[in-house]
Amino acid sequence: MSKRMMHLVAYLKTGPTAVHVGGWRHPEARLDNLFEPSRYQQIAQELEAACVDACFFADLFGLYDIHKGSLDSYVKHGGQVSYLDPMTVLPLMAAATRHLGLGATLSTTFFNAYHLARSLNSLDVLSKGRVAWNVVTSATDLEAQNFGFDSILPREQRYDHADEVLEACCSLWDCWEPDAFVHDKRTGVFADPGKVRYADYKGRWVATRGPLSIPRSPQNRPVLMQAGSSERGRAFAARWAELIFTVHGTTAAMQAYYNDMHERMSAGGRDPNDCKILLQGTIVVGETESIAREKAEYLNALANPELVLAASSSNVGADLSKVTSDTTDAGLAELQGNQGIQGVTDFLRQRAAAEGGDFKRAAEKSLPDQFVGTAESVADQMQALFDARACDGFVVAPIYFPGSHESLCRAVIPELQRRGVFRTAYSGNTLRQNLKD
Amino acid sequence: MSKRMMHLVAYLKTGPTAVHVGGWRHPEARLDNLFEPSRYQQIAQELEAACVDACFFADLFGLYDIHKGSLDSYVKHGGQVSYLDPMTVLPLMAAATRHLGLGATLSTTFFNAYHLARSLNSLDVLSKGRVAWNVVTSATDLEAQNFGFDSILPREQRYDHADEVLEACCSLWDCWEPDAFVHDKRTGVFADPGKVRYADYKGRWVATRGPLSIPRSPQNRPVLMQAGSSERGRAFAARWAELIFTVHGTTAAMQAYYNDMHERMSAGGRDPNDCKILLQGTIVVGETESIAREKAEYLNALANPELVLAASSSNVGADLSKVTSDTTDAGLAELQGNQGIQGVTDFLRQRAAAEGGDFKRAAEKSLPDQFVGTAESVADQMQALFDARACDGFVVAPIYFPGSHESLCRAVIPELQRRGVFRTAYSGNTLRQNLKD
Repeated sequence: MSKRMMHLVAYLKTGPTAVHVGGWRHPEARLDNLFEPSRYQQIAQELEAACVDACFFADLFGLYDIHKGSLDSYVKHGGQVSYLDPMTVLPLMAAATRHLGLGATLSTTFFNAYHLARSLNSLDVLSKGRVAWNVVTSATDLEAQNFGFDSILPREQRYDHADEVLEACCSLWDCWEPDAFVHDKRTGVFADPGKVRYADYKGRWVATRGPLSIPRSPQNRPVLMQAGSSERGRAFAARWAELIFTVHGTTAAMQAYYNDMHERMSAGGRDPNDCKILLQGTIVVGETESIAREKAEYLNALANPELVLAASSSNVGADLSKVTSDTTDAGLAELQGNQGIQGVTDFLRQRAAAEGGDFKRAAEKSLPDQFVGTAESVADQMQALFDARACDGFVVAPIYFPGSHESLCRAVIPELQRRGVFRTAYSGNTLRQNLKD
Repeated sequence: MSKRMMHLVAYLKTGPTAVHVGGWRHPEARLDNLFEPSRYQQIAQELEAACVDACFFADLFGLYDIHKGSLDSYVKHGGQVSYLDPMTVLPLMAAATRHLGLGATLSTTFFNAYHLARSLNSLDVLSKGRVAWNVVTSATDLEAQNFGFDSILPREQRYDHADEVLEACCSLWDCWEPDAFVHDKRTGVFADPGKVRYADYKGRWVATRGPLSIPRSPQNRPVLMQAGSSERGRAFAARWAELIFTVHGTTAAMQAYYNDMHERMSAGGRDPNDCKILLQGTIVVGETESIAREKAEYLNALANPELVLAASSSNVGADLSKVTSDTTDAGLAELQGNQGIQGVTDFLRQRAAAEGGDFKRAAEKSLPDQFVGTAESVADQMQALFDARACDGFVVAPIYFPGSHESLCRAVIPELQRRGVFRTAYSGNTLRQNLKD
């Protein structure tokens, strides 16, 4: 049996900030090229040179205004905003690389299955089998209102619908046999119609006839990513996900999640090794421990406190300015309605409990979890969690661009490679193959 | 008043064939790079070097199987199929060029206004204001069935809905003021929230709240293309279109259309000069007239007759294998249902009348209209139509790739430039500006 290897995915956003809302203010953070193709091509090339499995873009189909009913904090202080549609950026990254996986976040609630299948498969063909789809069901009323609805559907219903969207997409991705093309100019036979079939999918809510006009990609369908954390979300991820990313407040919580997901997959007849579970975090690397610590403090001080709370409001799906230390779980749930990411809500509860504070306190200081130290000690921290089977690797989000990626690719990854826990060359031809090494 | 200049747009398809179903069999037609980013980047660079206004991708959200209820002809003989989603190809072309306009065909019937606005605006920002949107309402049941509906809506209703989609998109494109970004790292002000407003659009069918998260592009919104030909389609184009492309069976019909559209625009309070009307055609160029004629005959002989009829069936929206010389207009309309492109139906009727044949005969020989000759005589033919105010220029579709583009860019355009009727350098910074020169 070959040695278990760590997997690394870079978390991206088409904006100044990925997860750390202050990082864009770092003196070396680049803002001048936010709308330049070269920004995204350089990111991709740096990550590929370090043999990172994949990158993916987090996304929101709108602008957060949950906190105090206003978007002012997000716009003014530089919050997480998708300033470009990642689907217009990913093709550029595909053309600039040969191995790096390329992930998009697309909503099963707001996009039609045929469009999703067509657009993702097209990118998968262009990139020769390197696409990942971060499947989200969306969790905000503001997105629903952008798409013409009054509010977001209840979670259960969103996931039931998402199951059908994925079933429909899989039917569409199977329409073309891999060897359908003939390309015989002499006889005039372009392709074999016997190798193209209809999808003919019909669910309760989703229907599509097909066939898709996009041929089969080298990995047949994109790698499915998921971050489901609620009971229903976990069931969904156990059925579909090949890559899970998650946040937890404690190592024990991470291990419990890891074990729970493995049990669910086994129970459903899947090999848990076919799904990698990654923890989301950021890294701050310094030449010495004290430099790294001071750098982390410096970066955190750049985050506007109001925006930190606004970001928590956005993720929890409730206006946390209305929450006090007396607010009960039921009171919070009422503020949420159908909104909010269960994983983040749980995370803040775990944090509040671990630190003896209340939910709002935890939300106010909720900057992303950081691995801080020298490249060696950051690698130590990551390897410890990996060895403890709290995870199979990490989704690493940059605090600022391009500095954080450079620390990852130039310092931490070479250290992990020296230890033999991370690849020094890509072994597969597709993203799915690389995730298995 | 400056001299009236011709405008040229290249018609593209993400497949082997754009409009001429036999061209892919030409000995020099390239099929090996159909799925390579480089194919599309090379096309864009060739067109830009010749100062072509723009290129755009025709598109269908499915695979034609109207003819005999089967997709066999299309797949087997190399019909017009979108083998890639153009929206994944256009960003590559944007990154490879600086001036060329970049057009996508997207359906107001199947895509949500928020998605359309976001995706097009994102490409418009990345390309610094060079995007065109060929607005279609879609005209086939097969597309409707791919998106989960039983059949396509009646034309009137599709256009009424499309009006709302465009109104909603325009509201979304106006959300960000051009100078909203501040980027002050010292004070922590990223952008001015006072320069971001909600769209708050609410029509009968379409609603969106906004704001869009994509900032304003240098041309504010994409150039709107349209090919409306029915009474309702013309009203729609007169309201919205900045670029119209059309086909007609006779010069008189072209002039009548041109005048009608100008009158409609004037009546609606628009300056007709703000909309360029282009005729769609193909070119076959030879060193001598006889080489060109023989080459055109050679190319036409490569087209499979069954596929030619199938392509007509697709455009007319009726299975023409069921049509006889006795079929009345009402009988044809019954076969069409809500399907079919009015402009193509009219075109075939004009052809049948002009040539004393019946509708099906016209459909069976319906290969695209060609300008055939030496570069000089092709330029003569184009200039004659331009001077007769039958059009403001042409949408030129390649018969085979890359040969047809090369003939256009290396032979015909230099001739038009010598005559001073076509630009020798781009004058504007955006597509909209270039269309005005």
